[in-house]
Amino acid sequence: MVSTPNQLDATAVATETRAGRLSVREVAQSVLERIELRDPAVRAWSHLDPEAVLASADGLDGRETRGLLHGVPVGVKDVINTRDMPTEHHTARYVGSVPGVDAACIDTLRSAGALLVGKTVTTEFAATNTGGPTRNPHDPERTPGGSSSGSGAAVADLQVAVALGTQTGGSTIRPASFTGVYALKPTWNSISREGLKMYSATCDTLGLYARSGRDLALLADVFHLDEPDRPLPTSLAGLRVGLCRTPAWDLAEPATREALATAAGVLRDGGAEVAELELPEIFEELPTVHRRILRREGRSAFLNEHLASPDLPAFFHEMVLGTDTVDSIGWPTGTPDVADFRAAYRVADRCRALYDDVASPFDVVLTPSAPGEAPIGIGNTGSSVFNSLWTLLQVPVVNVPGLVGPAGMPIGVSIVGRRYQDRLAVACAGLLGAAVAARTDDVAPSLPAMAAFR
Amino acid sequence: MVSTPNQLDATAVATETRAGRLSVREVAQSVLERIELRDPAVRAWSHLDPEAVLASADGLDGRETRGLLHGVPVGVKDVINTRDMPTEHHTARYVGSVPGVDAACIDTLRSAGALLVGKTVTTEFAATNTGGPTRNPHDPERTPGGSSSGSGAAVADLQVAVALGTQTGGSTIRPASFTGVYALKPTWNSISREGLKMYSATCDTLGLYARSGRDLALLADVFHLDEPDRPLPTSLAGLRVGLCRTPAWDLAEPATREALATAAGVLRDGGAEVAELELPEIFEELPTVHRRILRREGRSAFLNEHLASPDLPAFFHEMVLGTDTVDSIGWPTGTPDVADFRAAYRVADRCRALYDDVASPFDVVLTPSAPGEAPIGIGNTGSSVFNSLWTLLQVPVVNVPGLVGPAGMPIGVSIVGRRYQDRLAVACAGLLGAAVAARTDDVAPSLPAMAAFR
Repeated sequence: MVSTPNQLDATAVATETRAGRLSVREVAQSVLERIELRDPAVRAWSHLDPEAVLASADGLDGRETRGLLHGVPVGVKDVINTRDMPTEHHTARYVGSVPGVDAACIDTLRSAGALLVGKTVTTEFAATNTGGPTRNPHDPERTPGGSSSGSGAAVADLQVAVALGTQTGGSTIRPASFTGVYALKPTWNSISREGLKMYSATCDTLGLYARSGRDLALLADVFHLDEPDRPLPTSLAGLRVGLCRTPAWDLAEPATREALATAAGVLRDGGAEVAELELPEIFEELPTVHRRILRREGRSAFLNEHLASPDLPAFFHEMVLGTDTVDSIGWPTGTPDVADFRAAYRVADRCRALYDDVASPFDVVLTPSAPGEAPIGIGNTGSSVFNSLWTLLQVPVVNVPGLVGPAGMPIGVSIVGRRYQDRLAVACAGLLGAAVAARTDDVAPSLPAMAAFR
Repeated sequence: MVSTPNQLDATAVATETRAGRLSVREVAQSVLERIELRDPAVRAWSHLDPEAVLASADGLDGRETRGLLHGVPVGVKDVINTRDMPTEHHTARYVGSVPGVDAACIDTLRSAGALLVGKTVTTEFAATNTGGPTRNPHDPERTPGGSSSGSGAAVADLQVAVALGTQTGGSTIRPASFTGVYALKPTWNSISREGLKMYSATCDTLGLYARSGRDLALLADVFHLDEPDRPLPTSLAGLRVGLCRTPAWDLAEPATREALATAAGVLRDGGAEVAELELPEIFEELPTVHRRILRREGRSAFLNEHLASPDLPAFFHEMVLGTDTVDSIGWPTGTPDVADFRAAYRVADRCRALYDDVASPFDVVLTPSAPGEAPIGIGNTGSSVFNSLWTLLQVPVVNVPGLVGPAGMPIGVSIVGRRYQDRLAVACAGLLGAAVAARTDDVAPSLPAMAAFR
């Protein structure tokens, strides 16, 4: 028996449980103890029923066939339907609401033998930047990011090995950067979004959190992501990496500038070729295009909520009625009409086709995950300015953890692939993460904020 | 009291019920009588509980506020979640399954006061061309089309005024053409798809059936479709119409060629300018691109079903595993790899942006709805070759009924708009439909197949 199964990554848990050296009940007990210890400080969960978790664990222990995720503890963002737990979207109307059918991703996780632990805190409908109760495990005064606040925090805090998030702007990658874990925002819809709350059909993507690169590769197996069209790399040597500062570079804080430079240095030290990728001028329109598309698609997505819930925050009503003057992150929306929306889609279409060309000389692209370390305060979950571009382009993005900013907080960098090259992006991110960890151990031996709980 | 409320269109029902001249119970009774009479021949319903319908009607009669669709009887395709009726997807695993939460569109319909009558027959997961039990109301030996078989048939047969369908290839427009009703496949995601079974995230669209152009305009109000960016036309005079035969023209049967020519003539007689719209060469790739995208997105969409339901038809398993050699309509799939999928998305992106330009000289485009009249036999629901192009382009399409083919069966034509110009397309379709009806009354006074039941 492993003494603290909650500390294991998913690959290790599944290896032990499948071999019969660890029971799922032991995993469940360890995870529940960790949550009991840490929940008052972190508050990652919107629903947790310890008795139900133990019952599920016993059910899994009784199974004859053991799936790829046998007994792996998973947290589920509370905008994803679960037939045996409430799905509340952090909004008044759905308190206690239990969908009768699992989301497709939950169904797949059950087939793989995952242990569903509970629902994690989201911002309202995963559509706002208004933080819930969750705190950053590395510093309770700071946001864990959002909207997948609870999922990022629970994985970072060793409460679960894996968690599900979603991303419409930067809702998966940003919390990963702020809390120091791996995350994959896969190619748009390469994992089914059926059974998830919608906001933007163009941008909404299921996201995955884990504490190791190999876990993301395991999850790529579980979710049957595409077979690679070339052998996956086993070292950094010879990798062709595009360094993309994006049109948002002016908003990068010193911590992010340094993190990107450090990551590029680690890649070069490992033998990768790192060259600048300057995006064509039309890409400068994408931040505006992203906001326009969310605004139009939010109008459709929240129409039924607008009609049924007069008490919703004004943001939702105004988005549906087209009377909003600022968007979810406080930027002016202007007064776009149908022609503006159509133009926005046209630019997005063109950029998506174009990106596939401009990225083709590279295996992957290196780019920031967030403007800096997690901001102080939990009322606002931070900026998605370095994520929304890639979300709109529908390409796979992996957050690589391991770097630390001046405040001692984690800071991630992103590895971006072309559409359906998720496994290549995951492999490169894992190699970079390992190299970063090796270097960090050398240069920055102590991580004070992390030492507090690990 | 109106003697046969089931014959009224939605606008007439709502006008009467809102004014208090007709009770919703009377509507329900009339509809249930019609269904009782005709269901043995048409078989449009997968779930119908008359007592529950009457109870809903009484509930609506007791409401103080009366919505835009107060008491309008609506059929719901059985891939759309309803919290008080099963949602079975015409597949074994979901027999008796009741989702705990309504799809967003159902929620909106309830807010508008619609009378939800029951669930209508779909092909399995709305993904195959294998017909269910539903027959074409105009000729029981012929298919009503699919996959929204029951919805098209129920509206055509005066069993409900409105029905919901979905379209991934031609699943809304084709049944409308075959059964002789209006249908709107709106701009992609301009009506929320939350709570619907997914197949292709790129193509899946909620569809609407009705028996009049004004009903589609009413539904555009209910679903809060975009405000028009110019005054809507009130006559055909001066309309600029592009005539688009599409790259599939070789597959158009004489009936469709004649229908398109007749519709163009009606438009010209009404004072519209009709000019050829020749699509750029790259559009010839779209049929292949559409099939590739469905194949890749079906892999994600049906992964959970593949894992949980070994008894599913081989088509679904093979699509997930990439071992399929023919697609859902029997065409060879080839052996596309990731690069082929990526190329397919690139072509789709380019065509979407390009179409917006080439369509800009026109108000709307006129194009076929189907290769011909409804084929004989109910085992196969027919071809989507004239629909999949527009579905992939994500533009609004309206089927205009009123024309009749050589076998005496209905044959529709499509009016296509640019993205988010749904109301313009609906208005033009209504004007064309009225002009066609006027002409048909003159040229073809009797519709033998329709006379049998109207």
